[in-house]
Amino acid sequence: MATTPAFDMVLFGGTGDLVMRKLLPSLYQAHKAELLHPEGRIVALGRSDIGRDAYLAQMDAQARPHVKNDFDAAAWASFVARIDFLKLDAADAADFAALAAHLGQRSGRVTVCYLATAPQLFSTLCEQLAAVGLNHPQVRVVLEKPLGHDLASSNDINAAVARFFNEDQLYRIDHYLGKESVQNLMAIRFGNALFEPLWRREWVDNVQISIAEDLGVEARGDFYDKTGALRDMVQNHLLQLLCIVAMEPPASLTANEIRDEKLKVLKALKPFSAEDVANKTVRAQYKAGAAGGRPVVGYHEEANIPADSRTETFVALKAEISNWRWAGVPFFLRTGKRMAERVAEIVINFRDVPHALFPNPSGQSFANRLVIRLQPDESIRLYFLAKEPGDGMRLQPTYLNLDFQSMFKVRRADAYERLLLDVIRGDLSLFMRRDELAEAWRWVEPILETWATSPVPPKSYTAGTWGPAASSALLSRDGAAWHEEV
Amino acid sequence: MATTPAFDMVLFGGTGDLVMRKLLPSLYQAHKAELLHPEGRIVALGRSDIGRDAYLAQMDAQARPHVKNDFDAAAWASFVARIDFLKLDAADAADFAALAAHLGQRSGRVTVCYLATAPQLFSTLCEQLAAVGLNHPQVRVVLEKPLGHDLASSNDINAAVARFFNEDQLYRIDHYLGKESVQNLMAIRFGNALFEPLWRREWVDNVQISIAEDLGVEARGDFYDKTGALRDMVQNHLLQLLCIVAMEPPASLTANEIRDEKLKVLKALKPFSAEDVANKTVRAQYKAGAAGGRPVVGYHEEANIPADSRTETFVALKAEISNWRWAGVPFFLRTGKRMAERVAEIVINFRDVPHALFPNPSGQSFANRLVIRLQPDESIRLYFLAKEPGDGMRLQPTYLNLDFQSMFKVRRADAYERLLLDVIRGDLSLFMRRDELAEAWRWVEPILETWATSPVPPKSYTAGTWGPAASSALLSRDGAAWHEEV
Repeated sequence: MATTPAFDMVLFGGTGDLVMRKLLPSLYQAHKAELLHPEGRIVALGRSDIGRDAYLAQMDAQARPHVKNDFDAAAWASFVARIDFLKLDAADAADFAALAAHLGQRSGRVTVCYLATAPQLFSTLCEQLAAVGLNHPQVRVVLEKPLGHDLASSNDINAAVARFFNEDQLYRIDHYLGKESVQNLMAIRFGNALFEPLWRREWVDNVQISIAEDLGVEARGDFYDKTGALRDMVQNHLLQLLCIVAMEPPASLTANEIRDEKLKVLKALKPFSAEDVANKTVRAQYKAGAAGGRPVVGYHEEANIPADSRTETFVALKAEISNWRWAGVPFFLRTGKRMAERVAEIVINFRDVPHALFPNPSGQSFANRLVIRLQPDESIRLYFLAKEPGDGMRLQPTYLNLDFQSMFKVRRADAYERLLLDVIRGDLSLFMRRDELAEAWRWVEPILETWATSPVPPKSYTAGTWGPAASSALLSRDGAAWHEEV
Repeated sequence: MATTPAFDMVLFGGTGDLVMRKLLPSLYQAHKAELLHPEGRIVALGRSDIGRDAYLAQMDAQARPHVKNDFDAAAWASFVARIDFLKLDAADAADFAALAAHLGQRSGRVTVCYLATAPQLFSTLCEQLAAVGLNHPQVRVVLEKPLGHDLASSNDINAAVARFFNEDQLYRIDHYLGKESVQNLMAIRFGNALFEPLWRREWVDNVQISIAEDLGVEARGDFYDKTGALRDMVQNHLLQLLCIVAMEPPASLTANEIRDEKLKVLKALKPFSAEDVANKTVRAQYKAGAAGGRPVVGYHEEANIPADSRTETFVALKAEISNWRWAGVPFFLRTGKRMAERVAEIVINFRDVPHALFPNPSGQSFANRLVIRLQPDESIRLYFLAKEPGDGMRLQPTYLNLDFQSMFKVRRADAYERLLLDVIRGDLSLFMRRDELAEAWRWVEPILETWATSPVPPKSYTAGTWGPAASSALLSRDGAAWHEEV
């Protein structure tokens, strides 16, 4: 792979968790793999003027332990040489002038401003950047979620940012889209003639997209209780994955053609009436249970959660896409905290054979199934039936691993690494466009509104389980069941 | 797997090559795997009255070395205990009476008469068996090829045999159909919803069926020169494999429903006009070259080959199936002696993607391909494109192994073992019915006739190559090329 162009990567919120745990380790990996231009510089920003040495000490303590593989002291040392630290207060114009001066000697270069800060600051930060000329065409701004808590607030943020930056300078990041297995899903669909003919209502029975976490709300109770699973996960991550699965083949792989196709899917999502919300969504809160073999408290016992909170920590819902390809095919989405396992996966359940030719003593149906796993490990598996070797004609369910890490013998990049490289290279394909975000909020809002006024409280589920019974019932009404690893 | 019913297996030609190299080793494996009923007896017949001890000594010298895996002295000893030897002269009615008397004490049991003899004897043998009552409903007759050298002689043999046996007592064996990978091909097609929708002209570009041998005519020059590759291989093995690939899903897996579907394929084969023979077939003879690293003589220098022989040792042809599913899809068949490798395989070449989305710097097309290998090893591989791990979106051709020996961890049976067990159990599914045979001859005859009178002599190819250039040219006229292992 070619190296990036020369660049400056400016990390707002440079002392924060995301930068330490994800961004710096990912940039280190790209550096070690010689994917970063030698002239690529990283400028971390923090509110306190701790100085470069103290910042490097913090990196050593907080970023370096997150380098999971391929740690190499020499590579780390040369990586660290790319890093500067500057003090920056979002409200202080002088700090921005200093930043601009610092970058100035290299002006006209690709400049990535990664806003790893609270979204309330986005508007101010963009205004300040523009005021010192740091909105020239080579500046790219990376926006982390949450981008608003409803359509109106999301529009506000996007409008504020758009006053200073063009849409093609804005990289709204969703790290699930940077996963190798999600990329490979597109390759499998559009690079081969085999799957695309089957990728439609005639052959697909249902699609399932799950992101299950085993953690609870942890220290984020205050934020989480204002947010809930639907806003935190469904509106962005799950709908983005749904788009990747359901989109029509674009005419080319340019960013806007891919995003046009995703937008079409979002626009084709069937809107939820209040009755639909009652029948096709399940919301729930975890109660005390177990996680990792230890007892854990319920949601209401977590720190900073009001006793009467109705915020959902679990959502399951049945989405439908009103278009020619997908009409009648349920897309079951599910996400929750304190679930049995940490797992994110997309499951394409194909229809069963129309007529069973082979003896099936178990009576169980084994329809073909494609399972794209995003975490904890990444893999793509095709489940199907093969003949058991030997005489007779008995079939056995088995699966093929369509995941090629072992075959290609190359290093697998983390999602953040991939996405950071895309930003530096100026590839917007895997980033959300403003209209996608608005469309996703538009679809989610009636659910939020119905829940807010519903006399029916959230269901509860025991921490460490797969959610309330209603989640299974949602699928069995369509003759389906959540995929379980075999 | 359950054991067979009790049986008598009578091996005509019991001292011959097929019995020693294939049938006895296969029966030993079934015995060792405890698949044979304890009351199962094997009666070998020979023209000379050598006696049981001498026969067992011959087995030890000629059959036992062909037990490739799992040889076990104790299992061999208990297997040998099943074996009797009787002298039998096809012309001697008394010998048949003695055979009947020998079996008589166990009459009414499943009795398999395996005619591992020259086909000229089939008629006599059947008549003699019937004369001593050995055509009762429990008697099954296994017929080895060649069953005739044209439609008339084939009809003669079948008619002669039919005077004494019902069609459902006749097991015309084609050991290619006993191959695990051929069975698995049916399982993959009809046990899964994934492949069947693609198994048709809309998605398949062409099908290739090759049986290449590295050997020459060896000691069989006299027989071979009267036969040739078309009769020896195409009329039976290649057409049977074509039927398995092309047949419609039967309503059930009963023998006659499978054979009805295969017959329909044979009937739908587009007949060859003299012009078609000129344009769509290639015949050739090998000339001196190399095999296994050593120089070898050409066909005309082999023992017992007339200097002016025009017998083909190589055939390639383009078959077409005039039905709704396959119209316009070429089925390329190819077989030959003294080719570059010993390999038998079926290749389903799917069409390319209608529109290339991914960069393809090599410019080479990599359409999806399913390769079912029958020999020397058995495997099923699906070739397709996957994303190369890492950033960017580059596709790499790769393949999946759909062959489950390693997954299921069970012993793989030889084709003959599987077919012998099917005969004992009375399962005709994998055996050719009389009408299939006749239909195959009907299709092959115009080619034979045109060649016989054609002024154009066979082409020649160097021993140890893939045949004459005309074989590649046959495919390139349809924009295709013979599959080569990558």
